[in-house]
Amino acid sequence: MTKNTKVNAAILIIGNEILSGRTQDTNTSSIALWLNSIGVTVNEVRVIPDIEDTIIDTVNILRKTSDYVFTTGGIGPTHDDITAQSISKAFKLEYEIHKEAFKILKAYYNVGEFNEGRQKMVWMPKNAKLILNPTSGAPGFNIENVFCLPGVPSILKSMLGGLQNRIVGGKPILSHTISLRTVESEIAKSLANVQDNNKDLEIGSYPFFQAGKLGVSIVLRSEDQSKINKCSKEILDFINEKKIKIVDR
Amino acid sequence: MTKNTKVNAAILIIGNEILSGRTQDTNTSSIALWLNSIGVTVNEVRVIPDIEDTIIDTVNILRKTSDYVFTTGGIGPTHDDITAQSISKAFKLEYEIHKEAFKILKAYYNVGEFNEGRQKMVWMPKNAKLILNPTSGAPGFNIENVFCLPGVPSILKSMLGGLQNRIVGGKPILSHTISLRTVESEIAKSLANVQDNNKDLEIGSYPFFQAGKLGVSIVLRSEDQSKINKCSKEILDFINEKKIKIVDR
Repeated sequence: MTKNTKVNAAILIIGNEILSGRTQDTNTSSIALWLNSIGVTVNEVRVIPDIEDTIIDTVNILRKTSDYVFTTGGIGPTHDDITAQSISKAFKLEYEIHKEAFKILKAYYNVGEFNEGRQKMVWMPKNAKLILNPTSGAPGFNIENVFCLPGVPSILKSMLGGLQNRIVGGKPILSHTISLRTVESEIAKSLANVQDNNKDLEIGSYPFFQAGKLGVSIVLRSEDQSKINKCSKEILDFINEKKIKIVDR
Repeated sequence: MTKNTKVNAAILIIGNEILSGRTQDTNTSSIALWLNSIGVTVNEVRVIPDIEDTIIDTVNILRKTSDYVFTTGGIGPTHDDITAQSISKAFKLEYEIHKEAFKILKAYYNVGEFNEGRQKMVWMPKNAKLILNPTSGAPGFNIENVFCLPGVPSILKSMLGGLQNRIVGGKPILSHTISLRTVESEIAKSLANVQDNNKDLEIGSYPFFQAGKLGVSIVLRSEDQSKINKCSKEILDFINEKKIKIVDR
């Protein structure tokens, strides 16, 4: 297993609803797949509660240990939305009305609809750069290497594309999956040999159940397609030798 | 928002497949819902890669900051399954064959099937307590306040029940959800007032889209049913006043 020492990111999921198990987080997967496609590896995810001190402390750790930090959740209009205020404190910046965000939301809503609750969403750390929201108006924001996105998955997804030119990634991380009708223990030794021969490529082995049958997905990950091809061939060689069937998945 | 100072736990998801976005974690939700039912609050979740030093460091932090730690993933037979070895190092314990686990797996498999790959799964930290696996034989294990479970969701779920008498929780954490046909900004101020009147109860507000319509779920969480009832009544009062419709969800 190789540690990717290239461009990396941490994801910080802020929200009691994930910690209570009530809501299943899906934002990690959306952000990670997008980051991989632009050459950024996710090296850590943390889920923390809506507690100001915890948000401040965690952001201040992650923004030093990772090249980029993406937070989700807590930027809506209700009392439990405390991300913008907490990020202001983490960076020791004023928490104030963002003029551009105010203009955007004033234009977005009909006259009379831009009420006190909605006006809360234009309070941000001083000099925050906006992250535009094509779905529901209220923008996210970015301070230094920290990018704050909403928790609602469909809205979050619609905002990632607009961030692309603010993230400087490495080579895209490529992956190739080979799914087999076997169990892990049958291929463990051969697979360990292949990993030994290909130390700078990540090989993962993941058992699955599909239509009542057991299987294993082998996932190869690297920035270098030729390394994936070489490793893939070595795996196909032992699969053929063991007469293991490849399956679609 | 109140911080629960009662019995708490951290969940540590070990696995590159979650960080890459390839696999959606569902174990957090399973573990959290089960823990809540036995009076344990999850105060943190971390997802980390299959890197030995990272596992060791993170386990050594979390086992001090939380009453219980639940790890998932990395206890299978392949080369990327390094949790048992890493936990041994974190606790400075020998990594050795667990006699009882060996007996269990020898009995579980037919003659000749208990091969080298499968035998890897009986290596554990010295004096680990087993966590029995009614689904697929190979047990998890427990050292002090750290409980190591597999990553496959269906197997993990089947093992939680057997742990119940090893976890000393507080009162079960109760929750009540009120779902409304409204948007957050319409209720933000009233809801903040209710939170101010009920400081030791957690009120979360979560927007949703359902059948093309917007809504908000208000979630009340407390160990005390009478506090939930009181708070619920205050919310129903302002909902009636504002003529907001309650919806099923």
